[in-house]
Amino acid sequence: MNILFVVEVFLLVAVVKCQYKPTWESLDARPLPAWYDESKFGIFIHWGVFSVPSFRSEWFWWDWQGVNDSDVVAFMKSNYPPTFTYPDFAPTFKAEFFNPEQWADVIQASGARYVVLTSKHHEGFTNWPSKVSWNWNSMDTGPHRDLVGDLAAAIRNQTSVIFGLYHSLFEWFNPLYLQDKQNNWTTQDFVKEKTEVELFDLINTYKPDLLWSDGEWEAPASYWNSQQFLAWLYNDSPVKDTIVTNDRWGARTLCKHGGYYTCSDRFNPGVLQKHKWENAMTLDTKSWGFRRNAPLTDYLDMENLTQILAETISCGGNLLMNIGPTADGRIVPIFEERLRQMGAWLKVNGEAIYGSQPWIFQNDTVTPGVWYTMAKRVASTAVYAIVLDWPDGDILYLASVSPSLQTNVTLLGYLGTFDWRRPESGGIEIIIPPIPASHMPCKWAWVFRFEGLET
Amino acid sequence: MNILFVVEVFLLVAVVKCQYKPTWESLDARPLPAWYDESKFGIFIHWGVFSVPSFRSEWFWWDWQGVNDSDVVAFMKSNYPPTFTYPDFAPTFKAEFFNPEQWADVIQASGARYVVLTSKHHEGFTNWPSKVSWNWNSMDTGPHRDLVGDLAAAIRNQTSVIFGLYHSLFEWFNPLYLQDKQNNWTTQDFVKEKTEVELFDLINTYKPDLLWSDGEWEAPASYWNSQQFLAWLYNDSPVKDTIVTNDRWGARTLCKHGGYYTCSDRFNPGVLQKHKWENAMTLDTKSWGFRRNAPLTDYLDMENLTQILAETISCGGNLLMNIGPTADGRIVPIFEERLRQMGAWLKVNGEAIYGSQPWIFQNDTVTPGVWYTMAKRVASTAVYAIVLDWPDGDILYLASVSPSLQTNVTLLGYLGTFDWRRPESGGIEIIIPPIPASHMPCKWAWVFRFEGLET
Amino acid sequence: MNILFVVEVFLLVAVVKCQYKPTWESLDARPLPAWYDESKFGIFIHWGVFSVPSFRSEWFWWDWQGVNDSDVVAFMKSNYPPTFTYPDFAPTFKAEFFNPEQWADVIQASGARYVVLTSKHHEGFTNWPSKVSWNWNSMDTGPHRDLVGDLAAAIRNQTSVIFGLYHSLFEWFNPLYLQDKQNNWTTQDFVKEKTEVELFDLINTYKPDLLWSDGEWEAPASYWNSQQFLAWLYNDSPVKDTIVTNDRWGARTLCKHGGYYTCSDRFNPGVLQKHKWENAMTLDTKSWGFRRNAPLTDYLDMENLTQILAETISCGGNLLMNIGPTADGRIVPIFEERLRQMGAWLKVNGEAIYGSQPWIFQNDTVTPGVWYTMAKRVASTAVYAIVLDWPDGDILYLASVSPSLQTNVTLLGYLGTFDWRRPESGGIEIIIPPIPASHMPCKWAWVFRFEGLET
Amino acid sequence: MNILFVVEVFLLVAVVKCQYKPTWESLDARPLPAWYDESKFGIFIHWGVFSVPSFRSEWFWWDWQGVNDSDVVAFMKSNYPPTFTYPDFAPTFKAEFFNPEQWADVIQASGARYVVLTSKHHEGFTNWPSKVSWNWNSMDTGPHRDLVGDLAAAIRNQTSVIFGLYHSLFEWFNPLYLQDKQNNWTTQDFVKEKTEVELFDLINTYKPDLLWSDGEWEAPASYWNSQQFLAWLYNDSPVKDTIVTNDRWGARTLCKHGGYYTCSDRFNPGVLQKHKWENAMTLDTKSWGFRRNAPLTDYLDMENLTQILAETISCGGNLLMNIGPTADGRIVPIFEERLRQMGAWLKVNGEAIYGSQPWIFQNDTVTPGVWYTMAKRVASTAVYAIVLDWPDGDILYLASVSPSLQTNVTLLGYLGTFDWRRPESGGIEIIIPPIPASHMPCKWAWVFRFEGLET
Repeated sequence: MNILFVVEVFLLVAVVKCQYKPTWESLDARPLPAWYDESKFGIFIHWGVFSVPSFRSEWFWWDWQGVNDSDVVAFMKSNYPPTFTYPDFAPTFKAEFFNPEQWADVIQASGARYVVLTSKHHEGFTNWPSKVSWNWNSMDTGPHRDLVGDLAAAIRNQTSVIFGLYHSLFEWFNPLYLQDKQNNWTTQDFVKEKTEVELFDLINTYKPDLLWSDGEWEAPASYWNSQQFLAWLYNDSPVKDTIVTNDRWGARTLCKHGGYYTCSDRFNPGVLQKHKWENAMTLDTKSWGFRRNAPLTDYLDMENLTQILAETISCGGNLLMNIGPTADGRIVPIFEERLRQMGAWLKVNGEAIYGSQPWIFQNDTVTPGVWYTMAKRVASTAVYAIVLDWPDGDILYLASVSPSLQTNVTLLGYLGTFDWRRPESGGIEIIIPPIPASHMPCKWAWVFRFEGLET
Repeated sequence: MNILFVVEVFLLVAVVKCQYKPTWESLDARPLPAWYDESKFGIFIHWGVFSVPSFRSEWFWWDWQGVNDSDVVAFMKSNYPPTFTYPDFAPTFKAEFFNPEQWADVIQASGARYVVLTSKHHEGFTNWPSKVSWNWNSMDTGPHRDLVGDLAAAIRNQTSVIFGLYHSLFEWFNPLYLQDKQNNWTTQDFVKEKTEVELFDLINTYKPDLLWSDGEWEAPASYWNSQQFLAWLYNDSPVKDTIVTNDRWGARTLCKHGGYYTCSDRFNPGVLQKHKWENAMTLDTKSWGFRRNAPLTDYLDMENLTQILAETISCGGNLLMNIGPTADGRIVPIFEERLRQMGAWLKVNGEAIYGSQPWIFQNDTVTPGVWYTMAKRVASTAVYAIVLDWPDGDILYLASVSPSLQTNVTLLGYLGTFDWRRPESGGIEIIIPPIPASHMPCKWAWVFRFEGLET
Repeated sequence: MNILFVVEVFLLVAVVKCQYKPTWESLDARPLPAWYDESKFGIFIHWGVFSVPSFRSEWFWWDWQGVNDSDVVAFMKSNYPPTFTYPDFAPTFKAEFFNPEQWADVIQASGARYVVLTSKHHEGFTNWPSKVSWNWNSMDTGPHRDLVGDLAAAIRNQTSVIFGLYHSLFEWFNPLYLQDKQNNWTTQDFVKEKTEVELFDLINTYKPDLLWSDGEWEAPASYWNSQQFLAWLYNDSPVKDTIVTNDRWGARTLCKHGGYYTCSDRFNPGVLQKHKWENAMTLDTKSWGFRRNAPLTDYLDMENLTQILAETISCGGNLLMNIGPTADGRIVPIFEERLRQMGAWLKVNGEAIYGSQPWIFQNDTVTPGVWYTMAKRVASTAVYAIVLDWPDGDILYLASVSPSLQTNVTLLGYLGTFDWRRPESGGIEIIIPPIPASHMPCKWAWVFRFEGLET
Repeated sequence: MNILFVVEVFLLVAVVKCQYKPTWESLDARPLPAWYDESKFGIFIHWGVFSVPSFRSEWFWWDWQGVNDSDVVAFMKSNYPPTFTYPDFAPTFKAEFFNPEQWADVIQASGARYVVLTSKHHEGFTNWPSKVSWNWNSMDTGPHRDLVGDLAAAIRNQTSVIFGLYHSLFEWFNPLYLQDKQNNWTTQDFVKEKTEVELFDLINTYKPDLLWSDGEWEAPASYWNSQQFLAWLYNDSPVKDTIVTNDRWGARTLCKHGGYYTCSDRFNPGVLQKHKWENAMTLDTKSWGFRRNAPLTDYLDMENLTQILAETISCGGNLLMNIGPTADGRIVPIFEERLRQMGAWLKVNGEAIYGSQPWIFQNDTVTPGVWYTMAKRVASTAVYAIVLDWPDGDILYLASVSPSLQTNVTLLGYLGTFDWRRPESGGIEIIIPPIPASHMPCKWAWVFRFEGLET
């Protein structure tokens, strides 16, 4: 038996091994492509016809005509003729200021390593020229552009950010869907003529590296053909090696099957999770789509954001931070500001975030507002304490850190090392020197790095 | 062999005989339901999103973006923003004045015995809530009504007029259709997901007694599954006994296969046809859809209309006269006037039209402007000469009529009989008495009835 | 006393005589320029922002917000957002199909000798670029054209029709007007800053030969400065020799002061009037402005129109027949048809209309439906009997006509003379020969001419 | 001479003294009401029809049709039909989210002591129901609200902020204005029928305490009747005792006559001025009206704003900071954030601003980025050094400050006093202790207070 033969057998096995079967057992066994965990921070973008009323949330249509929410009903009554329907909004989704290069620039500046755009939300309007969504897509009406394609191109040409797509399986008011539903999911007209066609189209045309599935909960994965689709996606699709997906593939798959877990909107458990997860949350705390009338208090600020980032990364999650562009195609300045502030913070402190891992402790056992990450690098391992509030006095006590003699304490973005001592009760006391405001490395949340800790 | 058995066999044969096969040979053998030929005169209605620009014709979209017709391009440039698309017209197709009872009243008053409404023209917009035309139908946008259903109900509740539907097989810009076309009709996605679904839906939901098919010419009947559909329509549909169809079912079926022949728009051969046919023509000579800027000269008047009716009926055709309602849902007065004038004429002269048959002569061999029909009735047979121009002098000479001694000559709508004589050269000379203008039975085209002609 | 002096005195007298004083006594003494009485028939055109809703009538705004008419309120509620206001209609008054040459052609074809366009109706929107109606005129918004100027030019370039203008003194909702009204007409801000400025502007710029004043009734003529204006108009304006005005110049001037009398809308007294008057009436019996939803029955037909014309002219009036163009600038076909039918009738029978005078009898004392006019011509005098219904039998008896031996009876548009006899009881019996329908000079109302009557 | 006579004479003198004459000499002699100088900081609001296109600036109309700016022309070409005019924007100025209580809350929170709203900009559209701007005001079209009145009420009910109004004398395209201009200002129709009426209306109706005049430069003050108006305003108007005005009252009045000086947009001389002045500037550096497409970099941040405030106040000016609300009535979050940040800063440091006076030095003669103010209070006088950059080291050297033995140095918002020493070369060296970031009184620009300085 010569070695060539062995190699051949090995390759054969490898190939065979790569063939995922359309079962959760097989699909769930696929390792998540490494880029995702390393990226840690992404930007989510919710854009669609709902950006036109830009009122209440991206669930506007459902709130209006699904549950007759009184605010939305009143808004329509006050501002539109009684015969106005949701599809009538589409022609005014004009995106006339949409400048994908500008968006790419802002997204890059935010420090995000990936971006996820809604290709189609529950309203069913496709942000690309889908052949099975005639006259209900961004090319035939409204923007008259391939929004997905234009953003993908700008992101890829200008940045190193990874491009992903959100896709809703269900569509609230699609009559084919409603018919299948009425048939108790025994028919699949909607899946075969719409969902599936569009999913294949999206993957083959735009080759996203992340597919953020949603709108799965009413019907079983078998109705959606999710397992078959994922098997194709992992085995044969043009992005089979890089694609990352989430866990929304059918009723009860959430937090259980698929790729990483999202569990719930704004999922932020505060404790370490066994399975890779993502905290998908919104800068406007009350909506994913742009809300024209959101007051400043509804927007998270950097104090909030650094805290959420610290909590999320420390517990093994990724943070997917959502913004909603306007119907005329802009990322409004308050969003741009937050994104650039995040980027400024990450420029100084990214070392504690990108490519990091959870440490043995997630947050400090004694001092509140301190979250840990760890980074294994070629030469050494560093532990990072993300301190949300600058210490009041001249001592920062961290109970979870056990220094050795070789321990070196530094502050990211600040020159020089810090003195420390080890109290009898354990932990570490870091001596905080007077640092003039003008020398502080950043304005919100500071990161202390520990090298040479006891192991 | 008892009589019961014979009856059973007969019934069996009858049933078997009724089962049409999906072949032209079988389908073409089906006798046209009698109501159609007896009706003679119908109203065609072209209504859709094209009624919004209401410019050039119902082919507006194609003229604009299919062939870049300079007039249409200039119209759009002058009146709309450059980003405006055809689907953007849909929300302004409001039909706010649509009053189906009023339409029914006008149609009834016209003397028409059937009416045919566009359920969907080449633009693909359905005038009923089709489940496979989401957000591109009259319920989801624009009128927010089931136009087909509302008119059907009014026609059936108020009148004895028979209700029919026009349906276009192809849709200029439907991406599924364009894809099948690109595939050289080897795929049928469009047929299976749109056309066929909608045809079944239309028949089952609205039970029209006439299906006016169109838009067939680019693809073979086999692509459209036309023979299968017609077999179902004739064998199993809820209108199997009454449904009448035309000849537009696939490339080269025109004037050859299906139900009655339409051959070409405004088909009016002037000579007797072997197969039942229809002259589908327009009151606005230049358009089927309403044209806002049509001057009076583009509208046919009663002189034209009685002539066309006479020519058509004499040669064995039916006349299907088209009107185009406005985007806000009105039959404009000029159309209403023509329809009511037709009704007034038919009230006097309908005896020569409804239920008539072509005579041995279609038009007079010597005197121009005279067209013949014949009606066989229980007791006798009458021949009718439709005289387009009132005789100049006091003699009307008709070469084609050979009177017998019993021949009785009357004028429809006028009391008393006419004297006549038979010239040596044959034919008949009718003595026209002085009739005051106020005693003339109508203002355009007069009908002489001959009873007791030589046989 | 030399001759030069005499001439000077004469000229002085002439000038003095021409100087009308701003009193009714003086103004009312002005002889009406002859062209007006000779013209007999004019076309009235109501066009404005009210043509956009095109619902109910040109009083739409008032009906909606002045008196809250329930139909108009419901119309607005059903079709517009609750915040919509009347001025918001203006941008959609686009007149995109307005072709003044085409209008001129239709007007000329109608046989009208003058045309009167609304330069401004009670809504206050000016159809010309008035400097004191900024952003509420047809140049600044909506059509973006000088509608008055464009029509004037076309009428004058293409036709011999005389051009006149309608002008409303008051404006329902103009705050300046309402303020003057509240001040019990003791202030004249509205008159000085709007009405007067615009009247001078209209006369100086467009030099109309007829000024159809309206909207006068709430305030006295002294408020409107009407007498001063008319004195200027008659003495010094560029149209001082040709201008004709009506009687709407202030409360209680109607039917009493000014130029010819209009007395009431659709004034048609049926008896001879002492003062020259005009019957201003509408083809759509219910509205002066275009009504989209007017059914055919609301439009007068030629039977009605020839009757009204006959009644009006016989009694010394002029007929001003109104049409309402659409917001997109068209004279719809039903109007065009009526106008062309009027023109066809007048081409045959105009001799009895244009330049005619009332006769000693206005209508026949015995036979109904017969109206008389008279024309004095160089050689002779003719009397005309306009017969609305063609005589049933072969005798037409006219009690009011007393023939002499020289009396010659003819039918306008028909060759040859008619036999007649004089019954003992007086009057005339005309022998009506058999005339084939095709030889009748027209379809509605026939005119018999009598020459050489007893004097 | 009895006492009553004396009193009478005194009163007479008082009255006479109060009567300003319509001459600059007299008007300029009026002392500025004290509230203005004490207030120091106000908010300017530019809102109008220009907020609809929200492109380029509030000069949109002029840029488009006055000078055909290529960007604006291209914007219109890309997004509107060719016939679209500026007045056509008005109906979409809907202000549907306008919540004056919310505005008042934000303005109050900004620390501003006065607010100035555009009652009417150069476009001529009035934000209140002006009787002489019919259908070109916020009540008749667009918002259908009295924007001026609604904001005035909210400001007065909820806050202690003083309410002022901006008013443009000229209107780019008002035909009356253009006519007067063409007449070389020899006629005053525009002034008498528009400007003057509206100015009186504004003052009498809304009783603003500040009138920010603009649009004066093309015509002399005599054309505008400015001196007469100001004499009335100061002598007889309902706000005669409190009203403050600026210097824009006619060609060449700028920086010379009227109330306080504005000199130029964003006037910020950097040296002490002899006459009270105001720095009217914009948060969006490129526009007064809201610009939808302004990127974040066009917005000033707190570093910029505190610097501009310091420079302005130190040199005796007031700061009037402009924001532009959206057409739908919102103060967007980026503006709200800046305003609230200003308020937060002023809460800590307002002592150095409100009611302060320029000191003998405006900025430090040696250390850059340090600006002085002074406040005389009952017991003592304090000098304030506004330090834009936190000292790098532990010494802050100020050359302009000469301490005495009693000198006390504190930091606004920080407990405790600072050690200092007096170097031989003069000035003061303040010893900066280590202050943890969390104890810094604010994030931008810090204020040192000196009490007991050498006098």
